[in-house]
Amino acid sequence: MKDAIDWIKESAGVVDADGFLASGVACDVRGKADGRLDLGLIWSERDCAAAAVFTRNSFAAAPVLLGRARLAAGAPLRGVVVNSGNANACTGARGLEDAERMAARFAARMGVAPEAVWMGSTGRIGVDLPIERIEAGIDAGVKRLGRAAEAGFAAADAILTSDTRRKVAGLRVQLSGGTVTMAGMAKGAGMIEPNMATMLAYLVTDAQIEGAALQQLLTRAVAGSFNAVTVDGDRSTNDTVLLMANGARGVGLACARDQALFAEALERLCLVLAEKIVGDGEKISKVVELDVYGGRDHAAAERVARAIGNSLLVKSSWYGNDPNWGRILDVVGYADTALDPAEVALAYESKDGTVCEPVYNNGARCGDVGRMRAIVRAKQFRIRLGLGSGSGQFRLLATDLTEGYVNFNKAE
Amino acid sequence: MKDAIDWIKESAGVVDADGFLASGVACDVRGKADGRLDLGLIWSERDCAAAAVFTRNSFAAAPVLLGRARLAAGAPLRGVVVNSGNANACTGARGLEDAERMAARFAARMGVAPEAVWMGSTGRIGVDLPIERIEAGIDAGVKRLGRAAEAGFAAADAILTSDTRRKVAGLRVQLSGGTVTMAGMAKGAGMIEPNMATMLAYLVTDAQIEGAALQQLLTRAVAGSFNAVTVDGDRSTNDTVLLMANGARGVGLACARDQALFAEALERLCLVLAEKIVGDGEKISKVVELDVYGGRDHAAAERVARAIGNSLLVKSSWYGNDPNWGRILDVVGYADTALDPAEVALAYESKDGTVCEPVYNNGARCGDVGRMRAIVRAKQFRIRLGLGSGSGQFRLLATDLTEGYVNFNKAE
Repeated sequence: MKDAIDWIKESAGVVDADGFLASGVACDVRGKADGRLDLGLIWSERDCAAAAVFTRNSFAAAPVLLGRARLAAGAPLRGVVVNSGNANACTGARGLEDAERMAARFAARMGVAPEAVWMGSTGRIGVDLPIERIEAGIDAGVKRLGRAAEAGFAAADAILTSDTRRKVAGLRVQLSGGTVTMAGMAKGAGMIEPNMATMLAYLVTDAQIEGAALQQLLTRAVAGSFNAVTVDGDRSTNDTVLLMANGARGVGLACARDQALFAEALERLCLVLAEKIVGDGEKISKVVELDVYGGRDHAAAERVARAIGNSLLVKSSWYGNDPNWGRILDVVGYADTALDPAEVALAYESKDGTVCEPVYNNGARCGDVGRMRAIVRAKQFRIRLGLGSGSGQFRLLATDLTEGYVNFNKAE
Repeated sequence: MKDAIDWIKESAGVVDADGFLASGVACDVRGKADGRLDLGLIWSERDCAAAAVFTRNSFAAAPVLLGRARLAAGAPLRGVVVNSGNANACTGARGLEDAERMAARFAARMGVAPEAVWMGSTGRIGVDLPIERIEAGIDAGVKRLGRAAEAGFAAADAILTSDTRRKVAGLRVQLSGGTVTMAGMAKGAGMIEPNMATMLAYLVTDAQIEGAALQQLLTRAVAGSFNAVTVDGDRSTNDTVLLMANGARGVGLACARDQALFAEALERLCLVLAEKIVGDGEKISKVVELDVYGGRDHAAAERVARAIGNSLLVKSSWYGNDPNWGRILDVVGYADTALDPAEVALAYESKDGTVCEPVYNNGARCGDVGRMRAIVRAKQFRIRLGLGSGSGQFRLLATDLTEGYVNFNKAE
């Protein structure tokens, strides 16, 4: 069944899928006149069904508030306009008005209703958008909308903030009625945690799927991918994952196998984009996979995994290639104050799984520090942590913490 | 009433109180042969009533496990032996045996029952104690037990780990029956958070108070002091606050006024020691007081305060003197996903309270960035955060996060 899913080798992001156009332009959102791409457009030639997952932050940004309203209203979606450099968050009534103006401008230029356009923003919180410059940018972006790889790349580049690398991926799925495409672009790279922290992802497909089904698929895919990464534990006001299905291929999910295939493809696409985000976390030097099993339930396993992945002491020791398992057990102990230490099992494992060194078992340490050090020294490794006999399970991708992160974030 | 409480200007820690002796020696716990003081003893000439608050970490260290047993058994307490450089945590049966041996050696040298001696440890997790060197150190420490300031200082120095400063304080309280003394020594300085993270504090008094009353007083005093500071959000396996009352002055708490006076004095002593701990947090450059009010209840206010105090992005911006209030509201938004942003009020205030700049009110930003910057630039300042009309309240002392912290903790 997996042979029915193929990665697109040289994905250009959203333009991989039929009927989708994109562009990216520089409109100086940051007021630095540096010519940096900062406004991205996505356009579908046909009406799209839409699904979305948003941040749960109480201070949700204006584009998130309006996005939720769009999703609830359920009108067909045609385009998306996204700026970087300014989050349009904590900006009150003016922020809502600006977000509406972004959508209205794009819609007017394309001759559709304002409700057919969604908007996104990412960047500094609490600063008003330079809305005239953004409107001018939209006009310029509309003229450059295209299907070429360059257009897809420009859109993907325009949504980046502290990211150092473009994040695009795409794949083809052979359904019973024919092949469909699924592709997307995303951005990180600080304020990354559960529930999605300054993380935007725009996914498209040319399959034919209606909104409710699309939402179910997306919600499930996000849980194990975008919501299972952490760089710094901060969750943003703007996180959004949007999935648009335009049906350009005229192929839907006709049977249970199609359903399963599409679901798996979407999960793989989300996971790859999420891995790109965590791997490009601000000034990180290492990605660590935390594989927690056992424990009372999934919530307990998740709580412990997140506590480890966000511990300053643990993250600092990873940065120093120090297999300081005592700090990990310390976190386990405060994240779950009800567990029995004698049931805890901890091991370091190489990324490819060929080398595994047990560290703590049956209430006592074990293993060889030299071998632990060899595993931890790698750019990527895995920590397997058993919490006891329960059925919990959670996998989290985390990063180390570097001096560079602190330096980078001490002022903007 | 406050005139009845006087700080001891040149406190020497536990020896301030009548009937208490102390010493500190170097016994090379770390195996570095650097002559560093690493073993402290406290001795009371009379039986003491004891009260204690311990870490709630599931991986509680051996001395904590035995301390809990001692507290539950309720036998009179005479002495305490504490080593730094090794936490004796995650050390299994051997660790429990070593902790018992520490107590037994001190008890044997002083001619009391082993149960009359408590023990403490702080330092690296998962390494066996060099018990023979510690036993030799106890023998040496017993010979040096004394009442002089030097003895109190040596004990206080011996329990330090990454601390850069000795932490002692003492005060006198005029009760109706006469004056009593209350004094203590403490250590930080990393793994500092709620529920007390590598934090040890040994408090003594020459007042006459029985165990149950003492425990009530201590539990209350710890909540607003040692449990209301954070450096890095990590809570340790070893945290202990112990209070010993030996009655050497023959003065008890005879009336409600005495009760209230003594409680207030204890709270002030705990707060001063807690402030010394946070002010000496690992490589910090700033201490920030988070004063959260309103909100549904105390728990909600505490959750929000702790989330702010532990946010990497917020802490990094403090380090950079950046009044990045957007990051603070972002944390408020994810720490309390049920609140109404329009009810949130945020202000920066100078430490002495003379300058206060509102930042966010009625759903909109306000205030002057230049004035905010002037406040945030100071070594200490206050953040006042209102969450709405509820009755919650929590005050947390937090620190910034520096490149020095990461560098210091990347390897031991």
